[in-house]
Amino acid sequence: MASAHRVVIVGGGFGGLYAARRLGRTPVSLTLIDRRNFHLFQPLLYQVATGALSPGEIASPLRAVLHKQRNTEVIMGEVRDIDVANRRVILADAEVPYDDLIIATGATHHYFGNDQWEPLAPGLKTIEDATAIRSRLLAAFEHAEREPDAARRRAWLTFVIAGAGPTGVELAGALGEISNDTLRHDFRHINPAEAQILLVEGESRVLPLFPPDLSAKAEKQLLALGVRSKTNARVTNIQEGSVTLLCGGLCGGREEQIATHTVLWAAGVRASGLGKVLADRAGAPLDRAGRVIVSPDLTVPGHPEIHVIGDLACFTHQTGKPLPGVAPVAMQQGRYVANALRSKLAGKTSPPFHYFNKGNLATIGRNKAVAEFGKLHVAGFAAWFLWVFVHLMYLVEFENRMLVFVQWVYDYFTRNRGARLITK
Amino acid sequence: MASAHRVVIVGGGFGGLYAARRLGRTPVSLTLIDRRNFHLFQPLLYQVATGALSPGEIASPLRAVLHKQRNTEVIMGEVRDIDVANRRVILADAEVPYDDLIIATGATHHYFGNDQWEPLAPGLKTIEDATAIRSRLLAAFEHAEREPDAARRRAWLTFVIAGAGPTGVELAGALGEISNDTLRHDFRHINPAEAQILLVEGESRVLPLFPPDLSAKAEKQLLALGVRSKTNARVTNIQEGSVTLLCGGLCGGREEQIATHTVLWAAGVRASGLGKVLADRAGAPLDRAGRVIVSPDLTVPGHPEIHVIGDLACFTHQTGKPLPGVAPVAMQQGRYVANALRSKLAGKTSPPFHYFNKGNLATIGRNKAVAEFGKLHVAGFAAWFLWVFVHLMYLVEFENRMLVFVQWVYDYFTRNRGARLITK
Repeated sequence: MASAHRVVIVGGGFGGLYAARRLGRTPVSLTLIDRRNFHLFQPLLYQVATGALSPGEIASPLRAVLHKQRNTEVIMGEVRDIDVANRRVILADAEVPYDDLIIATGATHHYFGNDQWEPLAPGLKTIEDATAIRSRLLAAFEHAEREPDAARRRAWLTFVIAGAGPTGVELAGALGEISNDTLRHDFRHINPAEAQILLVEGESRVLPLFPPDLSAKAEKQLLALGVRSKTNARVTNIQEGSVTLLCGGLCGGREEQIATHTVLWAAGVRASGLGKVLADRAGAPLDRAGRVIVSPDLTVPGHPEIHVIGDLACFTHQTGKPLPGVAPVAMQQGRYVANALRSKLAGKTSPPFHYFNKGNLATIGRNKAVAEFGKLHVAGFAAWFLWVFVHLMYLVEFENRMLVFVQWVYDYFTRNRGARLITK
Repeated sequence: MASAHRVVIVGGGFGGLYAARRLGRTPVSLTLIDRRNFHLFQPLLYQVATGALSPGEIASPLRAVLHKQRNTEVIMGEVRDIDVANRRVILADAEVPYDDLIIATGATHHYFGNDQWEPLAPGLKTIEDATAIRSRLLAAFEHAEREPDAARRRAWLTFVIAGAGPTGVELAGALGEISNDTLRHDFRHINPAEAQILLVEGESRVLPLFPPDLSAKAEKQLLALGVRSKTNARVTNIQEGSVTLLCGGLCGGREEQIATHTVLWAAGVRASGLGKVLADRAGAPLDRAGRVIVSPDLTVPGHPEIHVIGDLACFTHQTGKPLPGVAPVAMQQGRYVANALRSKLAGKTSPPFHYFNKGNLATIGRNKAVAEFGKLHVAGFAAWFLWVFVHLMYLVEFENRMLVFVQWVYDYFTRNRGARLITK
């Protein structure tokens, strides 16, 4: 393989991994670089954060997923820079040459210039985020149980989630289930069902990327779990023990301070730092979120050898608006780039990338979800069942994750959340 | 329940939890205090450290295990002191009065006066220990894969385990399986099977508490997994990048320095700090390991209201030697104390504690274990199967942990270790 075409993929998320798998039997020399040694099934991360699944159940070692691909090498390392002229990826302790480069390093959470909020209002992007949030949520109930003062107890039992996109809705719904079901008989001095769960959203409705009728249904399903939605509202300050909301729209610019020790951040993401590197080194245009504005074939303009996919890419050529940062887009882009490279090696050209939207799903809780398939809108059990089915299908595809399915079936009938550990 | 007899249990390990469960329907007011919010099934902790199971699979929330016991309150907190005269347990932020007190806070690892070794040679007592060891073991292979220098690569691929009791043997055996099986196809520049795994033991044989013929069989089974035992040897120094062994016995006082980045400590334990508190406050006699030398009824001499059980207790009244610090002893002592309290409340006296030794098991790897039942000694598949059966039985007893069974069956046939994550 010494003289084979060298393809380097940076990032082992959905985009990078789908590209790598599609290139497994292509006569190229493939290198996948990731900071972590595992692929993370991010759509289920909120289930780790809320004690339903364990980290090992939604993460697969990258080497294990790819070990049968004899043309593939996995490097655990962090990319520091890219030498575009000499076509080399620079790590702390090595340089990796490439003929084609695929950047798929995704996004991280973003506090809109208020980075001091990060330790007070953690976001949910990594396994460590998830176990830290899990510990915080559970510790809040423990503090409440030990707190004799009613007002202080109420602050411990108040949970604020900033951002009512799919992640915020999932977290809020799971918290509702924890308070109403899971912990129901666990305490002697508090009633967990009295927990206040507030879901704060700047737009006028929850799940603003879904059709209005599904947003309304989601809001109703959330309410059934004890989650109150505060729309047209945004967080203006977060301090130890309180969060300040500015309520716009109808309620007209009123500020409200809420006593709470638990704020979760699901309000914004920013593209990975490699976007900036590509701007500096390859003149890549960036959008406001730091994403690389890619050509119709997902390459950096002027650099047909550099491909950007997934959450780091801003692709507007299909609808005029950027495609959302969701797993299906990344998967399809990963497969597209792999196919485009195969065509290129065969001397053929490829059509531009086209996203096939199979539909949108958001889950809220047991038997509660919403789903959109073009004009078909579904809510409740059918949508939830579909959500479970789709996620298991993708999960099982990588590795045999049937155990997650068994765990879900068991949890469904017992309303169990066995992985609720407070760890350091 | 305001006027009920108040029983306080400190520690939710096997001893404390078995006592708590046995007292669930006794007319007492029961309080269980633990620093952590979960019971840990410690015999399987090495499986988390070696990537076979996830933390959530071997830990059960204490509140969930006990939530049906209406007479029981769980407090998550750390005991700072005991006011023996006024019969109060002192926490950082509260005092809990008792009529009877059960101390079951176990043991931690012990470096025999070399506490500076702890960060270099972690022991295996907590969930955090297990995930930290897991990250270290896996990161060592990652470093080796990236290391061009042969000698340095060899140091990354050298693993030293200090102590060949059951935990050391389990860790060494699992490491042998990881190197020979799990990671076989995962790397491109190293062969994981070339890893050196050294098991260092001060006594003249591995598993010194087992009969000599089983020690010999265990050593042979370990060798089949590539684990070399160094008996009559002890660690005299640990530094970043190397460990020094003093080989006594037949090889006569020779010092040997071994280049390695991974030393695991399974060589010694020290009793929990509450032993010292009991010595200071109640005049409890301690043995060299800091354990409380208890009366035949497991109480502190002169304090019939203070009971000490599990790894913190030194019970010598049966054989003249202290009972070993293993789960079956703690479980039987937990049940004994609960029964003794019930007798006391009924105005009856109890016979002294008697440990019923059902046998000893140590596992080494897939199909590899040793078992002793009095004069019956078993090794190989039969012993291993028994080990699996016994551990599952106990695991399932607390909570439905059938999934661990499913995971094991799956792993057995696929030789999978899916939870091998390097986390921070």
